[in-house]
Amino acid sequence: MRIITVSREFGSGGRELGKRLADELGFDYYDREIIDVIAHKNGMDPGYVEKSLEKGAWQTVPLTFKRSFVGPSMATSAKTGLLLEQKKVIESVAAAGRDCVIVGRNADVILEKYSPMNIFVCASMEARIARCISRSEGEEKVSLRDMKNNIRVIDKNRARTREMISGKKWGERENYHLTVNTTGWELRELTPAVADFARRWFERTK
Amino acid sequence: MRIITVSREFGSGGRELGKRLADELGFDYYDREIIDVIAHKNGMDPGYVEKSLEKGAWQTVPLTFKRSFVGPSMATSAKTGLLLEQKKVIESVAAAGRDCVIVGRNADVILEKYSPMNIFVCASMEARIARCISRSEGEEKVSLRDMKNNIRVIDKNRARTREMISGKKWGERENYHLTVNTTGWELRELTPAVADFARRWFERTK
Repeated sequence: MRIITVSREFGSGGRELGKRLADELGFDYYDREIIDVIAHKNGMDPGYVEKSLEKGAWQTVPLTFKRSFVGPSMATSAKTGLLLEQKKVIESVAAAGRDCVIVGRNADVILEKYSPMNIFVCASMEARIARCISRSEGEEKVSLRDMKNNIRVIDKNRARTREMISGKKWGERENYHLTVNTTGWELRELTPAVADFARRWFERTK
Repeated sequence: MRIITVSREFGSGGRELGKRLADELGFDYYDREIIDVIAHKNGMDPGYVEKSLEKGAWQTVPLTFKRSFVGPSMATSAKTGLLLEQKKVIESVAAAGRDCVIVGRNADVILEKYSPMNIFVCASMEARIARCISRSEGEEKVSLRDMKNNIRVIDKNRARTREMISGKKWGERENYHLTVNTTGWELRELTPAVADFARRWFERTK
């Protein structure tokens, strides 16, 4: 079984790259599908689950989360409970034994024992803003400053979640096999380049 | 003309990867060749030039170096003068107009106007130590602690030189098109993967 995890900066195109990569390689693809399973299992709205997982609410989180300590403060944080749920769903995806690409959700840390290939996707701030603008066409206008701020806040939350779960820094080069900067690429042209790299990774002898 | 620059952590195998990449792609290769030119031009020993460029001696360096301000303190730092020499040699290499791979020496910053493909090569500390041990076989034994310390000092000097020259952080993902972690790879197997990626980069339409 070959697992590729894709972590990404907000606005870098990492999600689209992950989807295209799965198509190119013929792998299963997981992203919001995981949210849907959690929502379904718990009788919650998928939108609520997603927002709770992306947002802050860290005040009540015990530092021993990694070892699954469930202290009295745990019940008070919706996010923490949902992170545990998410972990279980991701583990069950891997246990199914099919080749897959999983975008985000700290799957690289959760699935460490399966030796996934871990990719980090980044882009320049200018490129990320441009992508956010093209995504939000037709939606309510957001100022450039607010957009930049949003990007920073979302990345910060991702970094904090990751550090809490793994103790390893989000985005730090040593924690990924490949860090790809999408700036200057069309994703449809970048995809086969990353796919070839991944094929070679899974075929290597070392 | 296609230029690939390779920046790397000490002990990551970046130099060897750069050399192999040049062979694979049929590009010229520059690394210590640049040192030799500087040494020859200035009647200096290549070993002295190399050591001066790698080492510290930053106390006397003016902050305006990037804009080529040559203050009274400039002459007192051998390293600063050699960095300017190195810059000139690298510029003349690029001006020759041949496809090439340049390892280290902040060529990514110096040759920005040529739009090089910039690669950063890293590895886990364990892998870097293992590489340093296998390189130093037959040489004087160095303790593991000293080796780790050496690696940190050399990287710190590289980071400081780069920041002084460019104001941009060394090793930061946004400053490179691709960051490759050599941990778990045989370099001979990694090389064609990176070469293919580079070919696609130079053929892209965006």
